[in-house]
Amino acid sequence: MTTKISKAKLEQAAALMPQHGLDCWIVSFARETGNRQEPLEYLIGSTITWPSAFLLHRDGRTVAIVGSGDVGHVRDRGIWSEVRGYVASPREELVKLLDEWRPEKIGVTWSEDDDTSDGITHGMYRMLESILEGTPHAERLVAAGRMAGDVRGRKLPDEVEAIHSAIAATEDLFKRIETILRPGITEKEVQEQVHRWVREAGLGFSWEDDMNPIVDFGPLRAPMGHSYPGDTALAPGHLIHVDVGLRRDGYASDLQRTWYWLRDGETEAPEAVRKAFEATRAALDAGMAALRPGQAGHQVDAASRATVIENGFPEPPFAFGHPVGQVAHDGGATLGPRWERYGKSPDVLIQPDNVFAVEMDLEVPGYGLVGLEEEALVSEAGAQYLSNPQRELWLLPRRS
Amino acid sequence: MTTKISKAKLEQAAALMPQHGLDCWIVSFARETGNRQEPLEYLIGSTITWPSAFLLHRDGRTVAIVGSGDVGHVRDRGIWSEVRGYVASPREELVKLLDEWRPEKIGVTWSEDDDTSDGITHGMYRMLESILEGTPHAERLVAAGRMAGDVRGRKLPDEVEAIHSAIAATEDLFKRIETILRPGITEKEVQEQVHRWVREAGLGFSWEDDMNPIVDFGPLRAPMGHSYPGDTALAPGHLIHVDVGLRRDGYASDLQRTWYWLRDGETEAPEAVRKAFEATRAALDAGMAALRPGQAGHQVDAASRATVIENGFPEPPFAFGHPVGQVAHDGGATLGPRWERYGKSPDVLIQPDNVFAVEMDLEVPGYGLVGLEEEALVSEAGAQYLSNPQRELWLLPRRS
Repeated sequence: MTTKISKAKLEQAAALMPQHGLDCWIVSFARETGNRQEPLEYLIGSTITWPSAFLLHRDGRTVAIVGSGDVGHVRDRGIWSEVRGYVASPREELVKLLDEWRPEKIGVTWSEDDDTSDGITHGMYRMLESILEGTPHAERLVAAGRMAGDVRGRKLPDEVEAIHSAIAATEDLFKRIETILRPGITEKEVQEQVHRWVREAGLGFSWEDDMNPIVDFGPLRAPMGHSYPGDTALAPGHLIHVDVGLRRDGYASDLQRTWYWLRDGETEAPEAVRKAFEATRAALDAGMAALRPGQAGHQVDAASRATVIENGFPEPPFAFGHPVGQVAHDGGATLGPRWERYGKSPDVLIQPDNVFAVEMDLEVPGYGLVGLEEEALVSEAGAQYLSNPQRELWLLPRRS
Repeated sequence: MTTKISKAKLEQAAALMPQHGLDCWIVSFARETGNRQEPLEYLIGSTITWPSAFLLHRDGRTVAIVGSGDVGHVRDRGIWSEVRGYVASPREELVKLLDEWRPEKIGVTWSEDDDTSDGITHGMYRMLESILEGTPHAERLVAAGRMAGDVRGRKLPDEVEAIHSAIAATEDLFKRIETILRPGITEKEVQEQVHRWVREAGLGFSWEDDMNPIVDFGPLRAPMGHSYPGDTALAPGHLIHVDVGLRRDGYASDLQRTWYWLRDGETEAPEAVRKAFEATRAALDAGMAALRPGQAGHQVDAASRATVIENGFPEPPFAFGHPVGQVAHDGGATLGPRWERYGKSPDVLIQPDNVFAVEMDLEVPGYGLVGLEEEALVSEAGAQYLSNPQRELWLLPRRS
């Protein structure tokens, strides 16, 4: 992550604070962030060991209060204009700073709804309450999860470019994957080859390596979802489904592609497979048409979900889309139904400069899984693909 | 992490629950643990995407309640005897299970004092409260941070062996580092070479790569602490300080070593350097003598701290020791002063089978930093080193 993006994101955040009613935002109050990543690390710029507070004033001032052993490297990064060290406790410096700033509302980064905006542990929240106990600041703490989601969600041009570059690398990867597909190769062997290629290219994965890529050959062994590749060998008559995400320059991609391996004598996929592909495509198209500023996430999901059911498939047990950014499941609106597992994130309104992964997976009994996933950028005019969408089912072996 | 260790740790945890007054322990209530590591992931065995509860009964029963998309891979790992999937919300399954189990005390993994036992975010804690609202279980939640620290801290023989193996690799690394030390090489060049070696060996680092190793040549540029290696070139008359930790089979090491590069005509280090080395050594010896079951962490720290002051050095601004395990700063007792930044962890009593890093760093103006750090295993009889302690200041160039 570059210092330039960190500083630009902090400026963007300060500008957004008034509309979230915040005078001061405790962007992070955490410890040992080398063990467990601070979700807003890209605004912080460095990991820290001891309990540390990173505070942003709505006028753009930034102050870091960190343990003495962390002062050197936080200063070296040059993102926080003032770095105050402590030996025994951050208490004194933190209360002093809030006394100076006299904020009426102090945002703390937590959210029931959005994991990437849920930056403070329960133990650290209790420590913060105990530090502020007996001061006027104790009553002024408010949740800044929506604020965090807003900053994460509104991508700067440099961020869109980084995501685009991760997508391009992923599209190249799908082409390479196709070259090794042949009857007999196993799901695991495909994953192992992808791991070698990605390591050689010096890239990272957007999620856990052991499920990246997800590779499904033929009929599903388990309910669809996040699964490890197995020993199933590719055979004619199989759908080939690959879900992969790469990370490049700190930003992520998340894409799915589907092939079908023709049986002897077949010149096209069986009708059930073709119907599922068309229904998947239609679900993406319907969702994309609904994806525009001012819509709530659940409205976009509903548009896509309705076409799936109209086409005679069971209701999908997952959301149509999710933000993509620093991670594959980034913060902001979920394009999903109002199920408790998504909290209130499906109620969040779509904003210009949001980037989403939109996806649909449909199972075809006897053949396997059709899955498509693309990235889309929202602008005032609506949504446009950042990836090159797969519009046709890819048939293998390719005819020369 | 092996399934064997995960299961053994869960059995160990169940056996410890009565003495922590718990009938049921919600070991983890988290989401998106691929983005942000669950500190008890080695008990859970897999990452999950949707809000998931992993519950342990004091009779050893284990139940995982996970989103439908996570069911397959959690079952595949075979650690949790029952895996219950949900589509819309974990609410129903969670309340049903607690109704079955009727626990009087339900532990939730959070701690103000110990980061590795502070597993639940504030947002997830609020979600848990909201799920249990109106049920008899709501009033039965208690902090299980001490429980988590106890399980982390009491190492099983397989865990000690894994730590020992990480230490052995680190000791080999110090030998290799010595072979490249020569006047003119910079701190950064040493770090880069170490990164190549560690990658080639297929090992990982115990903390952030950009501060691993920490390399200090000569007089300090900033207050001692966690710092990035810089462009300082090694020169005669410099102390050479290296702090490095490796990770092997899921377990960590954390060691420091110190050399001195002789100036022309010198046959030993200057008196100030020798005195600092002896004081550092004495601080470790004093702490090790105090490190035994039943002592509180702050008592061990005090024994070491007193010798530093007696020897005429300023009071160290850090703790004498910390647990080592899955990570370099693992959970349990801190061997440190009762400063607020350590919470109540210095009050925790030392237990048999705890593993600690014990360390001391003293600055020698004009020469640099003397730092020693070793790993020690506690048994009923006291503490013994797991590393081969550095007893003499290493002088370079070596005489043949």
